[in-house]
Amino acid sequence: MSKPTPLSGFPELLPAERVVERAVADSLRRTFALHGFAEIETRAVEPLDQLLRKGETSKEVYVLRRLQEEAAGKDSGMGLHFDLTVPFARYVLENAGKLEFPFRRFQVQKAWRGERPQEGRYREFTQADIDVVMKDELPFHFDVEVARVMAEALAALPLPPMTLRVNNRKLIEGFYRGIGAEDPARVIAVIDKLDKVTADEVSGMLVTDAGLTDSQAEQCLALARITTADASFVDQVRALGVEHELLETGLAELAQVVDGVADLDGERFSVRAQLSLARGLDYYTGTVFEISMDGFENLKSVGGGGRYDALASDGKTTYPGVGISFGISRTLIPLLARGHLAGSRPVPSAVLVAVVDEESRAVSNVVAQQLRARGIPTEVAVAAQKFGKQIRYAERRGIPFVWFPADGADGSHQVKDIRVGNQVDADPASWEPPAEDLHPTVLTPLTDQPAQPHQSAQQQEEIS
Amino acid sequence: MSKPTPLSGFPELLPAERVVERAVADSLRRTFALHGFAEIETRAVEPLDQLLRKGETSKEVYVLRRLQEEAAGKDSGMGLHFDLTVPFARYVLENAGKLEFPFRRFQVQKAWRGERPQEGRYREFTQADIDVVMKDELPFHFDVEVARVMAEALAALPLPPMTLRVNNRKLIEGFYRGIGAEDPARVIAVIDKLDKVTADEVSGMLVTDAGLTDSQAEQCLALARITTADASFVDQVRALGVEHELLETGLAELAQVVDGVADLDGERFSVRAQLSLARGLDYYTGTVFEISMDGFENLKSVGGGGRYDALASDGKTTYPGVGISFGISRTLIPLLARGHLAGSRPVPSAVLVAVVDEESRAVSNVVAQQLRARGIPTEVAVAAQKFGKQIRYAERRGIPFVWFPADGADGSHQVKDIRVGNQVDADPASWEPPAEDLHPTVLTPLTDQPAQPHQSAQQQEEIS
Repeated sequence: MSKPTPLSGFPELLPAERVVERAVADSLRRTFALHGFAEIETRAVEPLDQLLRKGETSKEVYVLRRLQEEAAGKDSGMGLHFDLTVPFARYVLENAGKLEFPFRRFQVQKAWRGERPQEGRYREFTQADIDVVMKDELPFHFDVEVARVMAEALAALPLPPMTLRVNNRKLIEGFYRGIGAEDPARVIAVIDKLDKVTADEVSGMLVTDAGLTDSQAEQCLALARITTADASFVDQVRALGVEHELLETGLAELAQVVDGVADLDGERFSVRAQLSLARGLDYYTGTVFEISMDGFENLKSVGGGGRYDALASDGKTTYPGVGISFGISRTLIPLLARGHLAGSRPVPSAVLVAVVDEESRAVSNVVAQQLRARGIPTEVAVAAQKFGKQIRYAERRGIPFVWFPADGADGSHQVKDIRVGNQVDADPASWEPPAEDLHPTVLTPLTDQPAQPHQSAQQQEEIS
Repeated sequence: MSKPTPLSGFPELLPAERVVERAVADSLRRTFALHGFAEIETRAVEPLDQLLRKGETSKEVYVLRRLQEEAAGKDSGMGLHFDLTVPFARYVLENAGKLEFPFRRFQVQKAWRGERPQEGRYREFTQADIDVVMKDELPFHFDVEVARVMAEALAALPLPPMTLRVNNRKLIEGFYRGIGAEDPARVIAVIDKLDKVTADEVSGMLVTDAGLTDSQAEQCLALARITTADASFVDQVRALGVEHELLETGLAELAQVVDGVADLDGERFSVRAQLSLARGLDYYTGTVFEISMDGFENLKSVGGGGRYDALASDGKTTYPGVGISFGISRTLIPLLARGHLAGSRPVPSAVLVAVVDEESRAVSNVVAQQLRARGIPTEVAVAAQKFGKQIRYAERRGIPFVWFPADGADGSHQVKDIRVGNQVDADPASWEPPAEDLHPTVLTPLTDQPAQPHQSAQQQEEIS
């Protein structure tokens, strides 16, 4: 086998980079579980007919065939899932009798899309989803809850600050109805283009495509220009003088979501009511979310979600849901590639136990076991080389401490912090490395500051 | 969408079952990291020509196509990996310049095989692999190390006791050469059938297929019958009176591995030198491993591995390796299905905060945040129903505690352990549940005993 080359769109991480990915995934899991969300995993494959229900993604699905089926011209009828929502909806229907509702769940898994790879868009990627799903009716306070849980999760990540943008489909649909638009869905589809074309062009399309008058189009654009960090958007909308019952409901709902996470707004996290936000997919029926990473707006949204009044339905029962998805690969891979993030070392080991000679390897092994027994990741030197060579072995791996076993029964053990060079007597039954050296950590080399560490209880208190 | 049915061979877990799977995966990760093994993940796909190098698995590979490629009659040339060894070998070659050797790594990932589903054999399954890989030459003590690490990992699992069977290809090949067999590889292939056909049939095949005399065949069977819990196999082999240099090397190596894990032999873990073990795949060149789960021998091996002197090669450099794989799905799914294991509750929540009326939901939210800030998973009641209903909501989910917020500024908070019914005053800023109630745990309903909990530092000390 000659040297293989990377596969475009299928990023893989080196061990030190994986440290960062695990820190991010573990931090998300911890926050989600603190809020009572249960973890599930779904299989990688779904029936093709389910995957192709939404026409726009059909071209991006990877279809699966077994080799021998292929020979016989048969199709497995299965494809790899392209998100975690389609599998979750199927899981809820399949297991409805065994689940308790409301069902709060999170999923951290890979998904696959055959689209053209570019920065932030991969053919294989990991994402983290939270959703709450209920039978028949889902109280609105769950919209506030998922926003709150994701906001806390984002604020705790060792990543650049995140912004959660929120809007409400009832608000904009009610507004469009209030100004007399006959086909609000068309208006939403046109407004959704605001991040791609100019406001003038959108204005033109609102007239030609959505059948609005010039002044109606101007009102729609005025609404879309509103973006606030708090509930003050309510007054700005009211100032436009449009009235509709659905608009009132939407205003109240959006204000509740924004107020519900307002206390988290700060250096690590911001919330914005952004009234241009529509999110193309037409199954959203109320709250819509979008996440962006500050300073990396070129990556576009790195997460999103919303309320769907019919996440799943088996004909008899309808399951409404609300949820948000966060793209782990979409944020991490560009940050790692640009050097914004790094793992502090590529191995878990905090200590390398030196080997004096091959005959005494067992002595080194015993020291290592004593350290591991107290939770200190430890490896033993590969060979009884000169100590200088063994120390350089540790240096190359970023292992901070080298342990020199006692030479004979009377000698004493010594441990050396090879970063500063000081060497002291130590007892393998009680010595501890500083807590910050115990496990690999996440560094932010470009800012020269340590990354936000794992969410600690104390930090949580500061946040809440 | 009508109610979907499960897909044969693609098992999915309910939330309480997922608790068990996560406990197992976390326990494995913890032990592997304590020994300095770095975690990596590889992409799900590999080029088909790499996947098909080993002929015997070719029929089981899932081939991937993008829908639009399919329309154009094109093939992606990729398939889903069927194990974690092929991807790891490719990863090592691809990143050789960026890795430090020896490279200790573990991987806990899914793999896919299109084989016929049966108990313990699935089309999608999770496994945990550890390997050490080196450039040019890998010292033998790594064979002892991987056996040791996996033995500790298995002993710490909340699963039935495991047995690690070990043999050595040099030992058996040296023995066959010592008795004058001209084609030791043929003898190994026939001996490998001992778990499928009778000893008499194997004896016959040794004569007809492998060209042995009756007395040579009898010697081979005598060797294969040897199985010991310690290094006493050495004397038993010597008693057969066969001499060969390779046999001596193999005896010494096997004795080192067995001795290296002997102190872990006990209730949770056993080690056996089993001289019939060959493991069909012909790239093993020394130590071979197989894992079985006591009481579930019908599942056959639930893990295995060995030493390969050429795990990977790019033509210039050869990378020898030694490793062991453990089947998480293969062990867990049958145990869960038969009721041997269960999660203690399907939600992370240790506390449900009751809601007195919808107006005071914010009060309940504040209590929940105070508890979460101290690491206590907490959810808030869905609706301000009668307290009896809210308690039953907690009961159905196995949430042990229900919190009743203070009614007004003067009242005091109360918390009720709904399993026993006692209700006491409590302060949300300081109250703690018992440690064993904080997170869901693994239960073993059939034995009526708690499962081995997560590996604690203290337990590790008892083990080592």
